[in-house]
Amino acid sequence: MKIKFVTSNKGKFDEFNRIAKEYGIKIEWVRLEYLEPQGDSLEFVAKKSVEMLAESLDPPFFIEDSGLFIKALKGFPGVYSSYVFKTIGNEGILKLMKDVEDREAKFVCVIAYNDGDVHVFKGEVIGRIAHEMRGDFGFGYDPIFEYNGRTFAEMGEEKNLISHRRRAADEFFSWLAKNF
Amino acid sequence: MKIKFVTSNKGKFDEFNRIAKEYGIKIEWVRLEYLEPQGDSLEFVAKKSVEMLAESLDPPFFIEDSGLFIKALKGFPGVYSSYVFKTIGNEGILKLMKDVEDREAKFVCVIAYNDGDVHVFKGEVIGRIAHEMRGDFGFGYDPIFEYNGRTFAEMGEEKNLISHRRRAADEFFSWLAKNF
Repeated sequence: MKIKFVTSNKGKFDEFNRIAKEYGIKIEWVRLEYLEPQGDSLEFVAKKSVEMLAESLDPPFFIEDSGLFIKALKGFPGVYSSYVFKTIGNEGILKLMKDVEDREAKFVCVIAYNDGDVHVFKGEVIGRIAHEMRGDFGFGYDPIFEYNGRTFAEMGEEKNLISHRRRAADEFFSWLAKNF
Repeated sequence: MKIKFVTSNKGKFDEFNRIAKEYGIKIEWVRLEYLEPQGDSLEFVAKKSVEMLAESLDPPFFIEDSGLFIKALKGFPGVYSSYVFKTIGNEGILKLMKDVEDREAKFVCVIAYNDGDVHVFKGEVIGRIAHEMRGDFGFGYDPIFEYNGRTFAEMGEEKNLISHRRRAADEFFSWLAKNF
Protein backbone atom coordinates (compact mmCIF):
# COMPACT_ATOMS: atom_id res chain seq x y z
CA MET A 1 0.00 0.00 0.00
CA LYS A 2 1.53 3.30 -1.11
CA ILE A 3 -0.01 6.74 -1.21
CA LYS A 4 1.32 10.20 -1.99
CA PHE A 5 1.69 12.96 0.61
CA VAL A 6 1.82 16.38 -1.03
CA THR A 7 3.77 18.94 0.99
CA SER A 8 6.68 21.30 0.45
CA ASN A 9 7.74 20.77 4.08
CA LYS A 10 10.26 18.00 4.77
CA GLY A 11 9.67 18.05 8.54
CA LYS A 12 6.00 17.41 8.00
CA PHE A 13 6.71 14.52 5.66
CA ASP A 14 9.11 12.91 8.15
CA GLU A 15 6.59 13.18 10.99
CA PHE A 16 3.80 11.55 8.96
CA ASN A 17 6.14 8.94 7.56
CA ARG A 18 7.06 7.76 11.08
CA ILE A 19 3.41 7.39 12.04
CA ALA A 20 2.42 5.70 8.75
CA LYS A 21 5.04 3.00 9.33
CA GLU A 22 3.32 2.00 12.58
CA TYR A 23 0.29 1.14 10.43
CA GLY A 24 2.32 -0.69 7.78
CA ILE A 25 1.57 2.08 5.28
CA LYS A 26 4.15 3.51 2.88
CA ILE A 27 3.86 7.13 1.91
CA GLU A 28 5.65 8.78 -0.96
CA TRP A 29 6.75 12.40 -0.70
CA VAL A 30 5.47 14.63 -3.51
CA ARG A 31 7.33 17.88 -2.96
CA LEU A 32 5.00 20.45 -4.39
CA GLU A 33 3.49 23.81 -3.53
CA TYR A 34 -0.20 23.75 -4.36
CA LEU A 35 -2.91 26.38 -4.46
CA GLU A 36 -5.00 26.71 -1.29
CA PRO A 37 -8.24 28.67 -1.38
CA GLN A 38 -9.15 31.21 1.27
CA GLY A 39 -11.96 30.05 3.52
CA ASP A 40 -13.50 30.08 6.98
CA SER A 41 -12.43 26.62 8.10
CA LEU A 42 -9.48 24.27 7.70
CA GLU A 43 -11.90 21.59 6.48
CA PHE A 44 -13.14 23.78 3.62
CA VAL A 45 -9.62 24.81 2.61
CA ALA A 46 -8.24 21.25 2.70
CA LYS A 47 -11.20 19.75 0.85
CA LYS A 48 -11.09 22.31 -1.96
CA SER A 49 -7.30 22.02 -2.18
CA VAL A 50 -7.36 18.28 -2.91
CA GLU A 51 -10.20 18.73 -5.39
CA MET A 52 -8.17 21.30 -7.31
CA LEU A 53 -4.97 19.29 -7.00
CA ALA A 54 -6.65 16.31 -8.68
CA GLU A 55 -6.63 18.34 -11.91
CA SER A 56 -2.85 17.90 -12.07
CA LEU A 57 -2.08 14.87 -9.86
CA ASP A 58 -3.47 11.34 -9.93
CA PRO A 59 -5.09 10.02 -6.72
CA PRO A 60 -4.60 8.55 -4.20
CA PHE A 61 -2.89 11.41 -2.35
CA PHE A 62 -3.37 13.49 0.78
CA ILE A 63 -2.47 16.88 2.22
CA GLU A 64 -2.40 18.26 5.75
CA ASP A 65 -3.26 21.69 7.14
CA SER A 66 -3.08 22.94 10.73
CA GLY A 67 -3.99 26.02 12.73
CA LEU A 68 -4.20 27.58 16.16
CA PHE A 69 -7.68 28.79 17.16
CA ILE A 70 -7.89 31.17 20.14
CA LYS A 71 -11.34 31.40 21.69
CA ALA A 72 -11.14 34.98 23.00
CA LEU A 73 -9.93 36.16 19.55
CA LYS A 74 -12.89 34.57 17.69
CA GLY A 75 -10.70 31.78 16.36
CA PHE A 76 -7.80 34.01 15.21
CA PRO A 77 -5.24 33.18 13.77
CA GLY A 78 -7.11 30.04 12.61
CA VAL A 79 -6.92 29.20 8.92
CA TYR A 80 -4.22 31.86 8.42
CA SER A 81 -1.97 30.73 11.28
CA SER A 82 1.15 30.40 9.18
CA TYR A 83 0.77 33.87 7.63
CA VAL A 84 0.14 35.37 11.07
CA PHE A 85 3.19 33.58 12.45
CA LYS A 86 5.37 34.99 9.66
CA THR A 87 4.17 38.53 10.32
CA ILE A 88 3.29 39.27 13.97
CA GLY A 89 4.59 35.95 15.40
CA ASN A 90 4.32 34.73 18.98
CA GLU A 91 5.14 38.22 20.27
CA GLY A 92 2.07 39.55 18.46
CA ILE A 93 -0.21 36.83 19.85
CA LEU A 94 1.05 37.48 23.40
CA LYS A 95 0.42 41.20 22.94
CA LEU A 96 -3.13 40.55 21.72
CA MET A 97 -3.71 38.27 24.72
CA LYS A 98 -2.34 40.72 27.28
CA ASP A 99 -4.87 41.19 30.11
CA VAL A 100 -7.23 38.66 28.47
CA GLU A 101 -8.54 36.28 31.12
CA ASP A 102 -10.03 33.51 28.94
CA ARG A 103 -6.90 31.88 27.50
CA GLU A 104 -8.49 28.80 25.93
CA ALA A 105 -7.09 27.79 22.55
CA LYS A 106 -6.96 24.71 20.37
CA PHE A 107 -4.58 23.32 17.83
CA VAL A 108 -6.42 21.69 14.94
CA CYS A 109 -5.02 19.46 12.20
CA VAL A 110 -7.01 18.44 9.14
CA ILE A 111 -6.04 15.80 6.61
CA ALA A 112 -7.79 15.65 3.24
CA TYR A 113 -7.41 12.44 1.28
CA ASN A 114 -8.40 12.11 -2.36
CA ASP A 115 -8.89 8.59 -3.73
CA GLY A 116 -11.40 9.73 -6.34
CA ASP A 117 -13.68 10.76 -3.49
CA VAL A 118 -12.55 13.24 -0.84
CA HIS A 119 -12.29 12.17 2.82
CA VAL A 120 -11.50 14.53 5.67
CA PHE A 121 -9.92 13.60 9.03
CA LYS A 122 -9.41 15.88 12.00
CA GLY A 123 -7.39 15.99 15.21
CA GLU A 124 -7.63 18.57 18.00
CA VAL A 125 -5.86 19.41 21.25
CA ILE A 126 -7.39 21.88 23.65
CA GLY A 127 -4.99 23.95 25.74
CA ARG A 128 -4.34 27.55 26.68
CA ILE A 129 -2.17 30.46 25.64
CA ALA A 130 0.74 30.92 28.05
CA HIS A 131 1.65 34.35 29.42
CA GLU A 132 5.14 34.14 27.93
CA MET A 133 7.15 31.94 25.54
CA ARG A 134 8.68 28.85 27.15
CA GLY A 135 10.71 25.93 25.76
CA ASP A 136 12.93 25.23 22.75
CA PHE A 137 11.36 22.16 21.14
CA GLY A 138 9.15 22.21 18.06
CA PHE A 139 8.29 25.24 15.96
CA GLY A 140 5.65 27.88 15.29
CA TYR A 141 3.25 28.50 18.16
CA ASP A 142 4.62 25.62 20.30
CA PRO A 143 6.32 27.97 22.84
CA ILE A 144 3.03 29.70 23.72
CA PHE A 145 0.63 26.72 23.61
CA GLU A 146 0.21 25.20 27.06
CA TYR A 147 -1.16 21.70 27.61
CA ASN A 148 -1.47 20.39 31.17
CA GLY A 149 0.82 23.09 32.51
CA ARG A 150 3.68 22.72 30.02
CA THR A 151 4.03 24.35 26.61
CA PHE A 152 4.40 22.10 23.55
CA ALA A 153 7.92 23.51 23.26
CA GLU A 154 8.70 22.26 26.79
CA MET A 155 7.36 18.74 26.14
CA GLY A 156 10.00 17.49 23.72
CA GLU A 157 9.18 14.29 21.81
CA GLU A 158 6.28 13.70 24.18
CA LYS A 159 4.38 16.35 22.21
CA ASN A 160 4.32 14.07 19.17
CA LEU A 161 2.32 11.47 21.10
CA ILE A 162 -0.60 13.77 21.94
CA SER A 163 -0.49 16.49 19.28
CA HIS A 164 -3.36 17.47 16.97
CA ARG A 165 -1.23 16.20 14.11
CA ARG A 166 -0.74 12.84 15.79
CA ARG A 167 -4.47 12.55 16.46
CA ALA A 168 -5.47 13.37 12.88
CA ALA A 169 -2.82 11.00 11.52
CA ASP A 170 -4.08 8.17 13.77
CA GLU A 171 -7.65 8.74 12.55
CA PHE A 172 -6.52 8.73 8.96
CA PHE A 173 -4.08 5.82 8.96
CA SER A 174 -6.34 3.53 11.00
CA TRP A 175 -9.18 4.25 8.55
CA LEU A 176 -6.82 3.68 5.64
CA ALA A 177 -5.53 0.37 7.04
CA LYS A 178 -9.14 -0.88 7.05
CA ASN A 179 -10.31 0.68 3.78
CA PHE A 180 -7.49 0.58 1.27
CA MET B 1 -19.44 49.67 -23.43
CA LYS B 2 -20.56 47.29 -20.67
CA ILE B 3 -18.48 45.02 -18.46
CA LYS B 4 -19.27 42.83 -15.47
CA PHE B 5 -18.11 43.56 -11.94
CA VAL B 6 -18.12 40.42 -9.78
CA THR B 7 -18.65 41.11 -6.09
CA SER B 8 -21.01 40.01 -3.35
CA ASN B 9 -20.79 43.51 -1.81
CA LYS B 10 -23.42 46.07 -2.90
CA GLY B 11 -21.53 49.01 -1.37
CA LYS B 12 -18.49 48.16 -3.48
CA PHE B 13 -20.58 47.91 -6.63
CA ASP B 14 -22.19 51.32 -5.99
CA GLU B 15 -18.83 52.99 -5.41
CA PHE B 16 -17.33 51.61 -8.64
CA ASN B 17 -20.50 52.34 -10.57
CA ARG B 18 -20.32 56.04 -9.66
CA ILE B 19 -16.71 56.27 -10.84
CA ALA B 20 -17.33 54.26 -14.04
CA LYS B 21 -20.07 56.72 -15.09
CA GLU B 22 -17.53 59.56 -15.08
CA TYR B 23 -15.71 57.64 -17.81
CA GLY B 24 -18.89 56.83 -19.76
CA ILE B 25 -18.54 53.16 -18.86
CA LYS B 26 -21.46 50.97 -17.84
CA ILE B 27 -20.80 48.18 -15.38
CA GLU B 28 -23.13 45.31 -14.66
CA TRP B 29 -23.31 43.81 -11.17
CA VAL B 30 -22.69 40.05 -11.04
CA ARG B 31 -23.53 39.16 -7.45
CA LEU B 32 -21.39 36.13 -6.80
CA GLU B 33 -19.03 34.75 -4.19
CA TYR B 34 -15.96 33.35 -5.92
CA LEU B 35 -12.99 31.32 -4.78
CA GLU B 36 -9.89 33.33 -3.86
CA PRO B 37 -6.56 31.55 -3.44
CA GLN B 38 -4.26 32.18 -0.49
CA GLY B 39 -1.13 34.07 -1.45
CA ASP B 40 1.51 36.59 -0.45
CA SER B 41 0.23 39.58 -2.42
CA LEU B 42 -3.10 41.09 -3.47
CA GLU B 43 -1.87 41.03 -7.07
CA PHE B 44 -1.32 37.26 -7.00
CA VAL B 45 -4.68 36.60 -5.33
CA ALA B 46 -6.63 38.84 -7.72
CA LYS B 47 -4.90 37.50 -10.83
CA LYS B 48 -5.48 33.87 -9.92
CA SER B 49 -9.07 34.60 -8.92
CA VAL B 50 -10.04 35.99 -12.33
CA GLU B 51 -8.24 33.13 -14.08
CA MET B 52 -10.27 30.59 -12.08
CA LEU B 53 -13.46 32.58 -12.45
CA ALA B 54 -13.16 32.44 -16.24
CA GLU B 55 -13.93 28.72 -16.01
CA SER B 56 -17.52 29.58 -15.08
CA LEU B 57 -18.04 33.16 -16.34
CA ASP B 58 -17.50 34.69 -19.76
CA PRO B 59 -15.13 37.69 -20.02
CA PRO B 60 -14.99 40.65 -19.95
CA PHE B 61 -15.30 41.00 -16.15
CA PHE B 62 -13.32 42.39 -13.21
CA ILE B 63 -12.94 41.96 -9.47
CA GLU B 64 -11.48 44.15 -6.74
CA ASP B 65 -9.49 43.28 -3.62
CA SER B 66 -8.11 45.58 -0.93
CA GLY B 67 -5.94 45.41 2.15
CA LEU B 68 -4.20 47.37 4.89
CA PHE B 69 -0.42 46.85 5.08
CA ILE B 70 1.30 47.97 8.29
CA LYS B 71 5.06 48.45 7.93
CA ALA B 72 6.07 47.66 11.54
CA LEU B 73 3.98 44.43 11.40
CA LYS B 74 5.69 43.15 8.21
CA GLY B 75 2.64 43.97 6.12
CA PHE B 76 0.05 42.45 8.46
CA PRO B 77 -2.96 42.23 8.06
CA GLY B 78 -2.31 42.54 4.29
CA VAL B 79 -3.98 40.00 2.04
CA TYR B 80 -6.07 38.73 4.97
CA SER B 81 -7.33 42.14 6.11
CA SER B 82 -10.99 41.21 6.01
CA TYR B 83 -10.49 38.02 8.04
CA VAL B 84 -8.40 39.92 10.58
CA PHE B 85 -11.05 42.64 10.80
CA LYS B 86 -13.75 40.05 11.51
CA THR B 87 -11.69 38.46 14.30
CA ILE B 88 -9.45 40.89 16.19
CA GLY B 89 -10.78 44.10 14.55
CA ASN B 90 -9.52 47.64 15.05
CA GLU B 91 -9.09 47.00 18.79
CA GLY B 92 -6.67 44.18 17.97
CA ILE B 93 -4.65 46.30 15.55
CA LEU B 94 -4.40 49.13 18.10
CA LYS B 95 -3.23 46.65 20.74
CA LEU B 96 -0.55 45.27 18.39
CA MET B 97 0.58 48.83 17.64
CA LYS B 98 0.72 49.91 21.28
CA ASP B 99 4.16 51.47 22.01
CA VAL B 100 5.21 50.99 18.36
CA GLU B 101 6.85 54.15 17.12
CA ASP B 102 6.87 53.54 13.35
CA ARG B 103 3.16 53.85 12.49
CA GLU B 104 3.44 53.88 8.68
CA ALA B 105 0.76 51.93 6.85
CA LYS B 106 -0.76 51.80 3.40
CA PHE B 107 -4.14 50.95 1.98
CA VAL B 108 -3.82 49.05 -1.30
CA CYS B 109 -6.53 48.25 -3.84
CA VAL B 110 -6.02 45.88 -6.74
CA ILE B 111 -8.35 45.40 -9.69
CA ALA B 112 -7.98 42.36 -11.93
CA TYR B 113 -9.68 42.53 -15.31
CA ASN B 114 -10.14 39.52 -17.53
CA ASP B 115 -10.89 40.15 -21.21
CA GLY B 116 -9.31 36.89 -22.32
CA ASP B 117 -5.99 38.21 -21.02
CA VAL B 118 -5.57 39.29 -17.41
CA HIS B 119 -4.74 42.93 -16.59
CA VAL B 120 -3.96 44.18 -13.09
CA PHE B 121 -4.39 47.77 -11.81
CA LYS B 122 -3.34 49.10 -8.44
CA GLY B 123 -3.98 52.10 -6.21
CA GLU B 124 -2.24 52.96 -2.94
CA VAL B 125 -2.54 55.56 -0.18
CA ILE B 126 0.22 55.91 2.38
CA GLY B 127 -0.80 57.02 5.85
CA ARG B 128 -0.33 56.02 9.47
CA ILE B 129 -2.08 54.06 12.19
CA ALA B 130 -3.79 56.38 14.67
CA HIS B 131 -3.45 55.88 18.42
CA GLU B 132 -7.20 55.48 18.85
CA MET B 133 -10.31 55.09 16.67
CA ARG B 134 -11.75 58.38 15.40
CA GLY B 135 -14.70 59.20 13.10
CA ASP B 136 -17.93 57.55 11.97
CA PHE B 137 -17.70 57.55 8.18
CA GLY B 138 -16.78 54.55 6.06
CA PHE B 139 -16.14 51.05 7.33
CA GLY B 140 -13.44 48.53 8.27
CA TYR B 141 -10.10 50.06 9.18
CA ASP B 142 -11.18 53.63 8.23
CA PRO B 143 -11.34 54.82 11.91
CA ILE B 144 -7.67 53.95 12.55
CA PHE B 145 -6.13 54.95 9.19
CA GLU B 146 -4.81 58.51 9.33
CA TYR B 147 -4.08 60.54 6.19
CA ASN B 148 -2.79 64.11 6.59
CA GLY B 149 -3.86 64.23 10.22
CA ARG B 150 -7.42 62.97 9.84
CA THR B 151 -8.62 59.37 9.78
CA PHE B 152 -10.51 58.14 6.71
CA ALA B 153 -13.54 57.87 9.00
CA GLU B 154 -13.23 61.59 9.81
CA MET B 155 -12.96 62.66 6.15
CA GLY B 156 -16.48 61.87 4.99
CA GLU B 157 -17.06 61.83 1.21
CA GLU B 158 -13.66 63.50 0.74
CA LYS B 159 -12.13 60.08 1.39
CA ASN B 160 -13.63 58.79 -1.86
CA LEU B 161 -11.64 61.34 -3.87
CA ILE B 162 -8.23 60.20 -2.65
CA SER B 163 -8.72 56.59 -1.54
CA HIS B 164 -6.73 53.57 -2.78
CA ARG B 165 -9.99 52.34 -4.33
CA ARG B 166 -10.50 55.61 -6.18
CA ARG B 167 -6.92 55.55 -7.45
CA ALA B 168 -7.12 51.97 -8.72
CA ALA B 169 -10.51 52.64 -10.32
CA ASP B 170 -9.12 55.74 -12.10
CA GLU B 171 -6.18 53.70 -13.44
CA PHE B 172 -8.50 50.98 -14.65
CA PHE B 173 -11.31 53.04 -16.17
CA SER B 174 -8.99 55.45 -17.95
CA TRP B 175 -7.12 52.48 -19.46
CA LEU B 176 -10.43 50.89 -20.38
CA ALA B 177 -11.79 54.05 -22.03
CA LYS B 178 -8.73 53.98 -24.31
CA ASN B 179 -8.52 50.21 -24.90
CA PHE B 180 -12.02 48.81 -25.08
